[in-house]
Amino acid sequence: MTFASIAAFDAALADLAAPDMAAIAAARARQARLTKPAGSLGRLEDIAVFFAGWQGREKPSIERGRAVVYAGNHGVTARGVSAFPAEVTAQMVANFEAGGAAINALAGAAGLELKVVALDLDRPTADFTQAPAMSEAECLAALASGGESVEPGLDLLVVGEMGIGNTTAAAAICARSLGGDGASWVGAGTGVDAAGVARKIDAVDRALSRHADAPMTPFETLRRVGGREIAAMAGAVLRARQLRIPVVLDGFITCAAIAPLAARAPAIVDHCIAGHCSAEQGHAALLARLELDPLLRLDMRLGEGSGAALAAGVIRAALAAHGGMATFAEARVADG
Amino acid sequence: MTFASIAAFDAALADLAAPDMAAIAAARARQARLTKPAGSLGRLEDIAVFFAGWQGREKPSIERGRAVVYAGNHGVTARGVSAFPAEVTAQMVANFEAGGAAINALAGAAGLELKVVALDLDRPTADFTQAPAMSEAECLAALASGGESVEPGLDLLVVGEMGIGNTTAAAAICARSLGGDGASWVGAGTGVDAAGVARKIDAVDRALSRHADAPMTPFETLRRVGGREIAAMAGAVLRARQLRIPVVLDGFITCAAIAPLAARAPAIVDHCIAGHCSAEQGHAALLARLELDPLLRLDMRLGEGSGAALAAGVIRAALAAHGGMATFAEARVADG
Repeated sequence: MTFASIAAFDAALADLAAPDMAAIAAARARQARLTKPAGSLGRLEDIAVFFAGWQGREKPSIERGRAVVYAGNHGVTARGVSAFPAEVTAQMVANFEAGGAAINALAGAAGLELKVVALDLDRPTADFTQAPAMSEAECLAALASGGESVEPGLDLLVVGEMGIGNTTAAAAICARSLGGDGASWVGAGTGVDAAGVARKIDAVDRALSRHADAPMTPFETLRRVGGREIAAMAGAVLRARQLRIPVVLDGFITCAAIAPLAARAPAIVDHCIAGHCSAEQGHAALLARLELDPLLRLDMRLGEGSGAALAAGVIRAALAAHGGMATFAEARVADG
Repeated sequence: MTFASIAAFDAALADLAAPDMAAIAAARARQARLTKPAGSLGRLEDIAVFFAGWQGREKPSIERGRAVVYAGNHGVTARGVSAFPAEVTAQMVANFEAGGAAINALAGAAGLELKVVALDLDRPTADFTQAPAMSEAECLAALASGGESVEPGLDLLVVGEMGIGNTTAAAAICARSLGGDGASWVGAGTGVDAAGVARKIDAVDRALSRHADAPMTPFETLRRVGGREIAAMAGAVLRARQLRIPVVLDGFITCAAIAPLAARAPAIVDHCIAGHCSAEQGHAALLARLELDPLLRLDMRLGEGSGAALAAGVIRAALAAHGGMATFAEARVADG
């Protein structure tokens, strides 16, 4: 099992793989020879070089990209933190499996395979204002499920989530990992009103207080104020790093899942691209803290991996330009 | 011939088609029924509704999208305004035709057909600091070439350009259409140094002075300080409007081509999406003046339609979500 113990998880986080510097140098040199003014493809050039480093080749490509939606249920929904009932998590998982959700269309448009990892939907986590969300065994199982959703041979991983109530858990994770309180990190989520936002802030502040004396480790933060899908995303991103698979992160909740890891090991973001900046309050600040510059800003706030899948299409185009363009010499074009 | 006379061109600009309001209403109603929190796909929802209006159907799609690169040569290159020699325009046209340029890869990634319209490359326009860039007949021919590159049956038009020296012409067009001087609109283009920027500013200011007494009409601005590819883009965008084909504009030069039209008829931008905001100085200000909010901000500054083609991929994904997602009723998901 991936991450079979807390020690194994901590060890993985302490031993992060590095990109292939020779491939990075080769990709940079290729960019300089392509038929365009130097630097004129902007961020597309950076993306190609980034993928070269993690895929370990001068001309990276996406032959087998996967989007994964991790789904979990949250005991904190009892506190009125969402505009939707908790049953919607399972209903949306059925929608993913039937092909009717936004992520189905967006993963399809980006040429990604879609995998859904539903984590014990009939067993919500505990209300973390009262007790740890998960036992150690439950949190390890969720981390492992995430790790096992990533396998050698993938060349891109898009990470997304579904879980009614999980913007509240994400806010609690951000506050416990990076500082601040409920008001710093809570937003409207799927669309709660001002009273709902106040209930979310209250839940986060109660959780911070309830778990204040517990160790401030990545594992304890994920376990105490996270959720199964959040721990699974942390496990997936860490496993992808072991396999040098580049990752595209989605919105606030996805990025929150790696905040505890980044608090311990800031380099965890080095194989990650922020697919977009969500309209969810808190995401822009979280991206800044993670030192990630989002690829897209389209006021999306759906989750499911939707923004990351859209970004994967832009990445695919960037790699097509990098790999497919002629050099000045090949095309007999005068170079400046 | 499309736009066979100045009067025909002016008449087309005075009679701009409107979108299909019934299709817009139907698309908005559909968005409200799809399995996602209301508004959570942000800009993607706006794109779907926009395309519904111009394509005239509740579920718009891109079955036949075309990217066109209009290419022309400029007499003003004699004034040292570009980092590349004028021969590169024809060399890059050959590169487009051989499939080796960025636009080939990016149009391919977005599923667009690519058309290259090379306009009398062996006859550069006159140096517009000395004389009108084109005769009336030459400018009408360029407008017509643009119009003829757009035909009924297309459901998306991506507009791009290639022309060594054309950021200087674009700056002159912006200044003459929207106010300001050379310093207001000139940038580094393909990468000139500070002395090159100074030469560009000087060329624009000389042109403004030289043509100050000429009528401030869209046609005279395109003719006197534009270029063949710039007039062709203006003709293409106007023809697309007659055919209700939605347009994705590329960077500074492409947007400059419609600035004279917008100065007369601001609604010309209503069937246009700004694909991206270029790194070229002047583009952000031009977009603001045209009241266009760019879809992407990726520090691109290549031209060729590259940023617009990339945006077309995002648009295709937005339409796939709009057309492919299940409704709450279809998926049996609880709606809030």
